[in-house]
Amino acid sequence: MNFKSDNCAGAHPKITENLAANASGFAASYGASDVDRRAEEMFCDLFGRQVAVFFVGTGTAANALAMTAVNRPGGVVFCHPQAHIFEDECGAPEYFTGGARLAGVDGAFGRMDPDGLVEAIGRHPADFVHNGQPMAVSITQSTEIGTLYAPGDIDAISTIGRKNGLPLHMDGARFANALVALDLTPAAMTVERGVDIVSFGGTKNGCWCAEALVFLDPDMAADVPFLRKRAAHLFSKSRFIAAQFEAYLADGLWLELARHSNAMATALAEGLAASSNCRLAWQPEANEVFPVIKRQTAARLVDAGAEFHEWPMPSFGGEKLGDDEMLCRLVTSFATTEEDVARFCEIAG
Amino acid sequence: MNFKSDNCAGAHPKITENLAANASGFAASYGASDVDRRAEEMFCDLFGRQVAVFFVGTGTAANALAMTAVNRPGGVVFCHPQAHIFEDECGAPEYFTGGARLAGVDGAFGRMDPDGLVEAIGRHPADFVHNGQPMAVSITQSTEIGTLYAPGDIDAISTIGRKNGLPLHMDGARFANALVALDLTPAAMTVERGVDIVSFGGTKNGCWCAEALVFLDPDMAADVPFLRKRAAHLFSKSRFIAAQFEAYLADGLWLELARHSNAMATALAEGLAASSNCRLAWQPEANEVFPVIKRQTAARLVDAGAEFHEWPMPSFGGEKLGDDEMLCRLVTSFATTEEDVARFCEIAG
Amino acid sequence: MNFKSDNCAGAHPKITENLAANASGFAASYGASDVDRRAEEMFCDLFGRQVAVFFVGTGTAANALAMTAVNRPGGVVFCHPQAHIFEDECGAPEYFTGGARLAGVDGAFGRMDPDGLVEAIGRHPADFVHNGQPMAVSITQSTEIGTLYAPGDIDAISTIGRKNGLPLHMDGARFANALVALDLTPAAMTVERGVDIVSFGGTKNGCWCAEALVFLDPDMAADVPFLRKRAAHLFSKSRFIAAQFEAYLADGLWLELARHSNAMATALAEGLAASSNCRLAWQPEANEVFPVIKRQTAARLVDAGAEFHEWPMPSFGGEKLGDDEMLCRLVTSFATTEEDVARFCEIAG
Amino acid sequence: MNFKSDNCAGAHPKITENLAANASGFAASYGASDVDRRAEEMFCDLFGRQVAVFFVGTGTAANALAMTAVNRPGGVVFCHPQAHIFEDECGAPEYFTGGARLAGVDGAFGRMDPDGLVEAIGRHPADFVHNGQPMAVSITQSTEIGTLYAPGDIDAISTIGRKNGLPLHMDGARFANALVALDLTPAAMTVERGVDIVSFGGTKNGCWCAEALVFLDPDMAADVPFLRKRAAHLFSKSRFIAAQFEAYLADGLWLELARHSNAMATALAEGLAASSNCRLAWQPEANEVFPVIKRQTAARLVDAGAEFHEWPMPSFGGEKLGDDEMLCRLVTSFATTEEDVARFCEIAG
Repeated sequence: MNFKSDNCAGAHPKITENLAANASGFAASYGASDVDRRAEEMFCDLFGRQVAVFFVGTGTAANALAMTAVNRPGGVVFCHPQAHIFEDECGAPEYFTGGARLAGVDGAFGRMDPDGLVEAIGRHPADFVHNGQPMAVSITQSTEIGTLYAPGDIDAISTIGRKNGLPLHMDGARFANALVALDLTPAAMTVERGVDIVSFGGTKNGCWCAEALVFLDPDMAADVPFLRKRAAHLFSKSRFIAAQFEAYLADGLWLELARHSNAMATALAEGLAASSNCRLAWQPEANEVFPVIKRQTAARLVDAGAEFHEWPMPSFGGEKLGDDEMLCRLVTSFATTEEDVARFCEIAG
Repeated sequence: MNFKSDNCAGAHPKITENLAANASGFAASYGASDVDRRAEEMFCDLFGRQVAVFFVGTGTAANALAMTAVNRPGGVVFCHPQAHIFEDECGAPEYFTGGARLAGVDGAFGRMDPDGLVEAIGRHPADFVHNGQPMAVSITQSTEIGTLYAPGDIDAISTIGRKNGLPLHMDGARFANALVALDLTPAAMTVERGVDIVSFGGTKNGCWCAEALVFLDPDMAADVPFLRKRAAHLFSKSRFIAAQFEAYLADGLWLELARHSNAMATALAEGLAASSNCRLAWQPEANEVFPVIKRQTAARLVDAGAEFHEWPMPSFGGEKLGDDEMLCRLVTSFATTEEDVARFCEIAG
Repeated sequence: MNFKSDNCAGAHPKITENLAANASGFAASYGASDVDRRAEEMFCDLFGRQVAVFFVGTGTAANALAMTAVNRPGGVVFCHPQAHIFEDECGAPEYFTGGARLAGVDGAFGRMDPDGLVEAIGRHPADFVHNGQPMAVSITQSTEIGTLYAPGDIDAISTIGRKNGLPLHMDGARFANALVALDLTPAAMTVERGVDIVSFGGTKNGCWCAEALVFLDPDMAADVPFLRKRAAHLFSKSRFIAAQFEAYLADGLWLELARHSNAMATALAEGLAASSNCRLAWQPEANEVFPVIKRQTAARLVDAGAEFHEWPMPSFGGEKLGDDEMLCRLVTSFATTEEDVARFCEIAG
Repeated sequence: MNFKSDNCAGAHPKITENLAANASGFAASYGASDVDRRAEEMFCDLFGRQVAVFFVGTGTAANALAMTAVNRPGGVVFCHPQAHIFEDECGAPEYFTGGARLAGVDGAFGRMDPDGLVEAIGRHPADFVHNGQPMAVSITQSTEIGTLYAPGDIDAISTIGRKNGLPLHMDGARFANALVALDLTPAAMTVERGVDIVSFGGTKNGCWCAEALVFLDPDMAADVPFLRKRAAHLFSKSRFIAAQFEAYLADGLWLELARHSNAMATALAEGLAASSNCRLAWQPEANEVFPVIKRQTAARLVDAGAEFHEWPMPSFGGEKLGDDEMLCRLVTSFATTEEDVARFCEIAG
């Protein structure tokens, strides 16, 4: 019953199989192999246009390189204060950019508030050097708390960014989970919404280590080969990432895995909503469930071998936690089983 | 007949097998899994002491993080001008350190000259802020041109460094090849020689993507967990590197692969030395052979499917290339076959 | 009637005179001249102990170098969200440190709230690499809104910092104004309060360009000569700053100028408090006055030649601005005249 | 008899006078004052075109900001190995750019060799990420060893740069000395020669602290206001630099001072050339003289109060120093007197 994170799962057998299939023989290194080329073309097909793709090893690398690609001196990136780039990357975006600043723009249910974005940008008048200059907007899809930006939500953000000359980055560590939940094509969730750069995650959804930094307009990516190499994220045997993506994207495996993962979250949410010891803090929309669980019940779950994180958020949406309650985060993945979900709900009672 | 680089080979079956064996089931992420622990302990056993090990994805990451761990403002790193950190990393060490400088200290046969090192350090008097301050010495073992630092060579360098308070880094992208060639234990090639930090490479010798940054004195590594995360080189499913190392180091696989690789280089060198169309620029000591080949012969080899690099060094050891000659680099690996070596030599004539 | 900023004033005649007195003759460059030595000794006398002093040209340089001197990877600096380092330096602290982050800790009347500081530090558990590591606390004295940290306020902050191993930096751009307002010695406002590093400003209080970065414990400053040179803030004719400080600190000139400046602020505040068109947003404690002025009145003042900033803070201390009101910032300086103050109050009505 | 450096001189009386003249009264800060505007216009007049000018406090700041303005990831700057940016700035260019590399291109008499530049650029093929990408060429005029680039020399360099898309930076710490020696207009030494950016020094030639970073094409400078502020080099009372430049450039003062300085160097060179204890290592062309002096004679000079640097260059132009000789650097300035020159030559004998 491991619900700690989708990165606690291993890799799907088809990923490992394709690694094995590509292990023998010689191939050009540093991204020039045939399987690199094939995987890159799959990304172009996916987004329905020529895109520039860069394989890297971590989501943090994809995000930080994205910020570096649009870097400006005294630059300010607007993101939700719960964003991974803000909270969980040990300052990698700041480090990679040589000191750009992340400015938190809050909003309910993990989504950046458009009015707040307008206001935050407004605090940086052009040519006023003292407080820096806006350089980008970054959103996470699905969000850090398992909710989604609907197409109209993304439109609202990208419209504001565009007016201010700011590129829009989407941290898609859980891109697949959002995509199947919204039942959109990749282009409909990005290109058609005004997104410019995507951190396209494979690791959390069944790969070992496969992240792609995708520029929907290749012209924005002219310097990225140098940015990636300089940051030590160009792999010599790059085909080991490409081969993962080849298997991941073939025959809709990635969508299938995400659908399973989301379905497990839905089942978990329904089970917990029915329990008198739990309530849902908010409705899950992808593969993360945030229930408020009685502390006694939570202890019982842990004793039974369940693993999950207590989430440090003392209040949400106007509600406050009771002293005997805790907010928890449960993450499902391609590897989550119906049995584990059922058992968890049963113990929750 | 791919002799372009040892990173053109894929991965040894045992590496892929161990990935498969670790793919199912849940495990703690970010380096906290059991296989991470086991692999780390294997490194302690290897070096015969408690060491601090950090798994990363590229040799450039290991090197650049090593430099960052010993960084100083206005810092100067002394290395051979052919060093990978100097020539092949797109400025990653400078970038990671926020601007440290690499100062080339030349020397014959790819080895830094100790007298040159003394002189170079001497150009930076203490407390003279204008030209910065020495911060480290870095050597490559085996060197970029396939030669070796004998134990006494390393002693000479480390003694100078120590006198000047400078830590010694060893870029061991081909650590195994050097080790078996010198028939030393890891400790005898590092700890006992005054080496402080090792970039321990697995990728070039049969792994997919497995590099370990090893601090022989763990006290030097206090900040490295933050350095690695900040540089986006902490993998969430870190076990995928650990599992590679587990298989790599088990039962001496790594030494066996390196011995094969070196033997192939020796065979290649002997075959080419016997050819009237080739001569060895210098004697190979690990898994790289640098023959001077008649241009006509080289063209014939390429036509027959051989792959290798022309090496941009117009003169060496007092010799000059003839107009009809080219200096070539041939690299062997765990995957090089006797057949390919024999065929290459046969065509060379 | 220029109340825009104390940096709109020029320089006190004694400053320029001492520049002239030091202009002829040769002297050692880069900080090694006699007047450099003399000015440094004046700082030691001032703080009653051996301190390490570094002359630089801007307050931003002093602040950013202070942060760099205590830098850590993934480092987080806690400061008030109105702090100059946070709001007004175009990301210089982040840039100098290669990406440290500033975390705002709010508090009433421009003073960091100690409880908020405890909570903010608590969000960074040791050894949890994901959200970085605390590295310093920085406060501004007098604050950005003209208030003061009383000795006990500083004690409260420094105690928390010390418990967490964090050095305390004081941005003293208006150090003199705070000092005379509190009637303390420099040591009593810093050393005895647990302050470790002071950005000691001279520019805003009558110098042309004279800022000193003071380490109260010289051991913390070992690398600062290199940090300063690397940041291009070591002046070749360093004596031009030293000469300013020599005149500034001699015979209590600096205290006299600050007393005048503060007295002008008090007079201004009293005059405006008596006006029916104005009210004080809060009580001024140094040389900045923040009145709420009727928009009509403000327009009349501007027409009469008054210069000041509207301050972008829609609410404060529970109060909200009326539609016909604006919050203004009026800064006095050594050069402010009683006539200007009287005239401003008279027009305000 | 101070010939250590032109930065050991103080400031010309007219500089200090203009500081005094601008000290009273209020003025807009951060570069927006009337005297800032006037000084900027003087620069436009000087170069005969609209230029973008940024006042900073040190030559190192001007140089490092120039490099930052043309920065590229993995960037390589080509400069003479004796260049100030290479030898004397504690890595400031590398630090400001976040890790760009300086590649030394040697050449006789302190001038970069054009063929060497072609070869050095050629080592960086486009799209080959491993060894970075060229980003700029930088030359020093007059050079670090007191020689000059003739107009044709600059043309040769700029033509190569232009072919490779590389902007040309001129470190003009001694711009005036070169200008009067060559009897050129500022435009003829820069714009018409293909120079793009000039570090225009005033400090070494009679100012206290006045350096201007000049972009001959203002379009290249779009981000420089942010670069300067972020590096803490925007002065609040910026008029104190502007006022220096106003006096410096008015009525040809700067040219007059440089002519005096150069004349003193010529007199010194002639005097020493006539001595049997000295010979000139090479012919001085601006305000630096490099004699080889018998050690005994040098000791006698030092005893008599002469100050100068021994220069660390064991051989030059094919010559080697005798054991009883030392190479010295003598720098003259606006403040050097005929008496000191005569006395020095007399003691030299």
